[in-house]
Amino acid sequence: MCAACHGANGISVAPDAPNLAGQPAIYLNAQLKAYRGGKRTHEVMNVVAKPLSDVDIDTLSVWYSSIKIEVRTP
Amino acid sequence: MCAACHGANGISVAPDAPNLAGQPAIYLNAQLKAYRGGKRTHEVMNVVAKPLSDVDIDTLSVWYSSIKIEVRTP
Repeated sequence: MCAACHGANGISVAPDAPNLAGQPAIYLNAQLKAYRGGKRTHEVMNVVAKPLSDVDIDTLSVWYSSIKIEVRTP
Repeated sequence: MCAACHGANGISVAPDAPNLAGQPAIYLNAQLKAYRGGKRTHEVMNVVAKPLSDVDIDTLSVWYSSIKIEVRTP
């Protein structure tokens, strides 16, 4: 489900969706919980995050964080 | 000021701060405005974003977005 906007490998395919690849797991975890609880608001993300368990959120956060990124050098 | 947490080239140096390099400018723009207006809350970011003008936000968003990233292949 995430991939529709955030891309199969966490590089966003929607112009208003952030890349998730390589983001710190602590950050991703906090944002997913903020979306789930409504502290951070976004039409789609609040709906998508609602049914996630803490374990789901841990798994997603660690997985996206594990995709390492680097600045592209020309 | 941004670099203290988000790194000189937008690759985060703080475990709870997201990478900004290569994020879509539309996304960065929206988040900075949400922090400035208080719609998105974060102790530091609300203070830092408060004095930014729309032009400041445009400039920051386009600059970070211009740093291209890629998934690191082993």
